[in-house]
Amino acid sequence: MGRVCDRLDEIYAIGGGPGANRVGYTPEEDEAHALAAGWMREHRLEVDVDPDGNLVGRLRGADPSLPEVWTGSHLDSVPKGGKFDGALGVVAGLEAVERLGRRRRTLCVVAFRDEERGCVGSRARVAREALPGAFVETHVEQGPVLEREGVPLGVATGIVGYVRGTVEVEGRPSHAGTTPMEGRDDALCRAAELVLAIREAALGIEGAVATVGRLEVEPGGVNVVPGHVTFTIDARAPDSERLDALVAALPVDVELRRADPVELETSVVADALAELGEPVVGLPSGAGHDAGVLARAGVRSSMLFVRSLNGGVSHSPDELSSDEDVELCVNVLARALGMLGDQPAAQ
Amino acid sequence: MGRVCDRLDEIYAIGGGPGANRVGYTPEEDEAHALAAGWMREHRLEVDVDPDGNLVGRLRGADPSLPEVWTGSHLDSVPKGGKFDGALGVVAGLEAVERLGRRRRTLCVVAFRDEERGCVGSRARVAREALPGAFVETHVEQGPVLEREGVPLGVATGIVGYVRGTVEVEGRPSHAGTTPMEGRDDALCRAAELVLAIREAALGIEGAVATVGRLEVEPGGVNVVPGHVTFTIDARAPDSERLDALVAALPVDVELRRADPVELETSVVADALAELGEPVVGLPSGAGHDAGVLARAGVRSSMLFVRSLNGGVSHSPDELSSDEDVELCVNVLARALGMLGDQPAAQ
Repeated sequence: MGRVCDRLDEIYAIGGGPGANRVGYTPEEDEAHALAAGWMREHRLEVDVDPDGNLVGRLRGADPSLPEVWTGSHLDSVPKGGKFDGALGVVAGLEAVERLGRRRRTLCVVAFRDEERGCVGSRARVAREALPGAFVETHVEQGPVLEREGVPLGVATGIVGYVRGTVEVEGRPSHAGTTPMEGRDDALCRAAELVLAIREAALGIEGAVATVGRLEVEPGGVNVVPGHVTFTIDARAPDSERLDALVAALPVDVELRRADPVELETSVVADALAELGEPVVGLPSGAGHDAGVLARAGVRSSMLFVRSLNGGVSHSPDELSSDEDVELCVNVLARALGMLGDQPAAQ
Repeated sequence: MGRVCDRLDEIYAIGGGPGANRVGYTPEEDEAHALAAGWMREHRLEVDVDPDGNLVGRLRGADPSLPEVWTGSHLDSVPKGGKFDGALGVVAGLEAVERLGRRRRTLCVVAFRDEERGCVGSRARVAREALPGAFVETHVEQGPVLEREGVPLGVATGIVGYVRGTVEVEGRPSHAGTTPMEGRDDALCRAAELVLAIREAALGIEGAVATVGRLEVEPGGVNVVPGHVTFTIDARAPDSERLDALVAALPVDVELRRADPVELETSVVADALAELGEPVVGLPSGAGHDAGVLARAGVRSSMLFVRSLNGGVSHSPDELSSDEDVELCVNVLARALGMLGDQPAAQ
């Protein structure tokens, strides 16, 4: 197990911290891809980089005409992100394929580009070319469910739908000392009211969340009443009905990009868990994932979740999974990939 | 009058817009100082730059042993600021001294550095050396009073007191999709509540104002619950009692830099207005000014306000004063400087 944890440490050290700092298509993400490509070569995988920069390591199967079996995740991170998000799926995938060795079908380990800003790499990939037969993504849960249930691993049943957009609030910039409170049109005060109303909208719908993660004030002088504020909205709900209700409740009238909820295949991961004597717990994913993009594109996609400790905190240096859970996930992933990799054409 | 307006246009063009962009100690402020130094040389003033970068143009008086008479203001601006703020005082001062010619006392035109971020240049000057005998600063009102009263010019009676500080709000960064609303510690939501509570605090005190002009969110990812917010407070009140009450009402517990209200000399400007047949309207200044710094340091300091149109908007490209009002202010300023410049030692 040392190797998986060592590799996670090595990727995490890129960018110098605090936390992971490998935003998509920056030199830091490039460095992580170069590192992973080196490990692929150590394992004698054929390394391929597609036109969007996605990295694929391929172990040719006995019958290369059969649909391929893919695993992996992404190596980019949010600013000041966690150690496991994305990187675990790539490193665990490499380890599982190394343990499995050559199977009937070709096994592939992928690192998709720029997942955090909307699955940029996987979207580009599915838009451009035909897809593999199956994909199993290992990922930290990034939520509190498995820790609360006391189980190390879970099966993702689907991925919540979300909307995203940018809101511009116009005010009138003026002098902070000479403009009476009554005569102000303060863009930041109006934005603050919207931030709180967006929170209220999500609180009113079971299972929904809404976040203003970025907010910029102009002109930004200490002694200037703000004239303009730009902020982002990220709002999610477990099914289409609740996503519709959430969108209707948001106190803004802007164009929102939408991704509908998607179901994932559960049987392969559930079977692998059961065969290894592990409990089978299904849970929806509140986060978007590359597996969701592939599922929407018609690929048989599954996700194996690994318990997040610290209450499920993620997108933070406090993100944590235990060495034992990581060890277990490699075993389960290898079992799942082995089952898929040995399937003859008929299945 | 063409020259004063042309020079205001020339200074305003620095930095390329929109609005004035000459933040203190940037190359753009340097460029404005170089321009003004050239005009001083055209007018055969002795040009001096002090160790803090303040620019002084000196017309030696017949009796250089008498205390000097200073006029001027500043050439820096807030980002996206107005055309008249600061620059008018320097350009009008140059014009008035040019018209007056040599007097008994030495006349000086000053451009203080970096006024907008807390009178940095004038504070450094008074901290370092002995001060001139008198200072008259011409400045746009930056408020609605003169426009409402229908008079072109006013006399500042004093400068409001203010406090300034920076507030840090700690939350817990986490994933925007997987962290339930109930389990969040969202630094931006808490900051939004504070922004609105700060507004309420000022609304509760007659004549007080409070502004959050700058606010920064970390880590700033679209899909990350904000973990940290930094914002500034600028709060002002016309007298010490109300400033105390305002500070007590602010919903934050941070160290605040404080400048107490200060009275200005009114008789010189009032006499000059009256001699030219103009109405004499006194009003407090909601903004801080270099004249306030000099007054606190014991200099006889006066301010001549020029009517701001557009409801008094300032720190904005919409800031406006009329050509006629600017013409009139040069006349009144020259009269005031002439009276001071002709005073013998006894006065």
